[in-house]
Amino acid sequence: MSQEIRLRTLSPPNEVVDKVLSALRIKPNKALIHIDKALNRIAAENVYAKIDIPPHNRAVIDGYATLYSSIEGSIQTNPSRLTIVGKIEINELPPSNYLIKPGEAIEVATGSPLPANIDVVIPYEYTQRISNQVLVFKEFPPKYGISYKGEDIRKGEIIVSEGEIIKPWHIALMASQGINKVKVFNKLRSVVLSIGSELIEPGEKLRTGFIYDSTRYLVKNYLRTLGLEVKDLGIIGDDPEEIRRHIVEAMDDYDIVFTIGGTSVGEKDYTVRVLENLNPTILIHGFALKPGRPGAIAVFNKIKLVMALSGFPVAALAELEAIFKPIYAKIMKIKGTLNPIIKAKLAKRIPSEPGIMEIYRVRVCLEDNEYKVYPLKLTGSGILSTLIKANGLLIIPPDITGYDKGDIVEVELIGDISECKM
Amino acid sequence: MSQEIRLRTLSPPNEVVDKVLSALRIKPNKALIHIDKALNRIAAENVYAKIDIPPHNRAVIDGYATLYSSIEGSIQTNPSRLTIVGKIEINELPPSNYLIKPGEAIEVATGSPLPANIDVVIPYEYTQRISNQVLVFKEFPPKYGISYKGEDIRKGEIIVSEGEIIKPWHIALMASQGINKVKVFNKLRSVVLSIGSELIEPGEKLRTGFIYDSTRYLVKNYLRTLGLEVKDLGIIGDDPEEIRRHIVEAMDDYDIVFTIGGTSVGEKDYTVRVLENLNPTILIHGFALKPGRPGAIAVFNKIKLVMALSGFPVAALAELEAIFKPIYAKIMKIKGTLNPIIKAKLAKRIPSEPGIMEIYRVRVCLEDNEYKVYPLKLTGSGILSTLIKANGLLIIPPDITGYDKGDIVEVELIGDISECKM
Repeated sequence: MSQEIRLRTLSPPNEVVDKVLSALRIKPNKALIHIDKALNRIAAENVYAKIDIPPHNRAVIDGYATLYSSIEGSIQTNPSRLTIVGKIEINELPPSNYLIKPGEAIEVATGSPLPANIDVVIPYEYTQRISNQVLVFKEFPPKYGISYKGEDIRKGEIIVSEGEIIKPWHIALMASQGINKVKVFNKLRSVVLSIGSELIEPGEKLRTGFIYDSTRYLVKNYLRTLGLEVKDLGIIGDDPEEIRRHIVEAMDDYDIVFTIGGTSVGEKDYTVRVLENLNPTILIHGFALKPGRPGAIAVFNKIKLVMALSGFPVAALAELEAIFKPIYAKIMKIKGTLNPIIKAKLAKRIPSEPGIMEIYRVRVCLEDNEYKVYPLKLTGSGILSTLIKANGLLIIPPDITGYDKGDIVEVELIGDISECKM
Repeated sequence: MSQEIRLRTLSPPNEVVDKVLSALRIKPNKALIHIDKALNRIAAENVYAKIDIPPHNRAVIDGYATLYSSIEGSIQTNPSRLTIVGKIEINELPPSNYLIKPGEAIEVATGSPLPANIDVVIPYEYTQRISNQVLVFKEFPPKYGISYKGEDIRKGEIIVSEGEIIKPWHIALMASQGINKVKVFNKLRSVVLSIGSELIEPGEKLRTGFIYDSTRYLVKNYLRTLGLEVKDLGIIGDDPEEIRRHIVEAMDDYDIVFTIGGTSVGEKDYTVRVLENLNPTILIHGFALKPGRPGAIAVFNKIKLVMALSGFPVAALAELEAIFKPIYAKIMKIKGTLNPIIKAKLAKRIPSEPGIMEIYRVRVCLEDNEYKVYPLKLTGSGILSTLIKANGLLIIPPDITGYDKGDIVEVELIGDISECKM
């Protein structure tokens, strides 16, 4: 019963993550890319504002810039009358010490720099020009129509942090600073590979006793969602020499190798034995994780990671969520969470084995202005369909023996929570 | 004061959306693509299961398949003893009417098809083989170790719906069915173009009175996030003939044209007049939207859409959110929401002008197990930095005159809500 002993030593996922990180020295390369290619990439530097935005006080509407004291109390029946002393084009600056005098106004367009003492801009719509004078029919409050120097961003403020996933607004902020290039981490390069003589590719004709490979498609696209580059090596049979050759060759060219299937203790499950024989720095087989118990992970030469995932789709997903994702987030210095996390109230009790991390697929629903969490299917690591019914994943840490109805739990959102019916 | 009259007729965003949709006949083409290229694309068909998954009862662990009645009560000190009658390989089927007898067991691997009356599979770890017999040291409950025919998906069930954004699990489900191609909508093809003689490109040297174009970068990348194809025509000056030529040429080759800037009523704002002169089917200028009031939208020949966005980044974003996104979602038949929506409690009162839709940037924070919504900056359509401080957008419909503290509101999440401090 040696197999029993092996599988009884299950490693808690957080320990697996720590051990792997202490043995692994993968450092993603950095690349300086144009900001327009940076959407959803991971920043590899802190980016600071180089200039105040706006760089000077400026008008945010078209109209007449003046002093509030000169237009205070203006109404339709008793307009103020100001003398127009000039006009400021959008791309010119007023003489640097120029100040406007009471009773004067200067014509401006949206974006025009303003003389230092201007404290209000009156929109054209509430004015009437008569030769070199302008009537103002409405009082506007001080600061109206003005955007002040540095109001948006001050020189030296951080606008993108290392490890931040770059969103449209980060790109726009960099652009507003004149910054057109940003350092990002190169994507980690990974390989996926299914092991199993019973597997066939979708698109092929189904033969008796065979099943279509679906887990590899889940893994590939999950990894792409995280931001990895994925090379697909397809399906190979349960042949130790073939498995060994593929893993060794893949490690030459890629950072991370994911094998799928071939990790439990049946006689045809060679992957873990192949990894053992390749002289890993560390090899951990058997995770205190449900589903996802039979997975394995190994580090070679400090810079190569091999993860042997379960052949069952939900188990593979759990292994990726509980073990790979935290490792990846640390390597890539990712800030925040990759998916939104919501805290909500459990709608019913869920049990959990002590010492085991459990991952539940759940549905988060709004009921009486309160988010409630419903666990979907308590078993069945092969039950892919629950993933399309779920809108969240709930991770129960190993030290928790289940949650009671009404407990507040953290759920990672993987789908829409706006129209949920239970 | 004719300009005043024009801007006083502000159209509510939902009416704008309805009018545009009733005049517009854009139908995105469909393309049949490999499932492996389908991540985050929009499905253009309903996909139904063709087969039961699993296609037959099968083992989900390696071990011995038997009848529960034959192993009931087994314990370490008093194991059951079963006769091994054979072995089922993963890719073979048992003889179709084969049934196992009490006291018998059959060896199976993960994935092996099972005889019809098998109701439990005992993992190897709790057995010991002695010649053609096996000892079972632990009782497992009925159904343990078995995945039943059709348990995951039944033939005829829907696995992807038209308008659904395709996620890794949808791809895996299609793969499990042997489906390797799926119809998706082709991306709508759009053009963006900034108008303004004061604008320069990031990367260029800042000259006095000029500002860097940032709104175009926000718009481009926002559109990419929605799933559009974006062609960037850069910056053009405030010259009506040049604006006209660019819009006309862009309409020849693309579905949607976005101009940025040149929409308010200053003398240099020619875009709306250019659109008027091009003989549109409909043209709406001035939205009851804050920020985003000066935008315009036009339909030409039923199949071309031109949207003239504000030059201010947050105003442009509001116009895209309130007007373009609902139009796009309808054209592409998108199911659910593009970003997650959360309902949460307002931490303080926010005012809203009656008859105007307002878009607030907010921070959603968890406090005492309850999500609270803090509005960030109540004015300033040029204040791009609030977008990196915000993790949500709150839309206040025109018929609501503000919300009180404690009101439950819907927030569209645009950032991380897991680590929020106010």
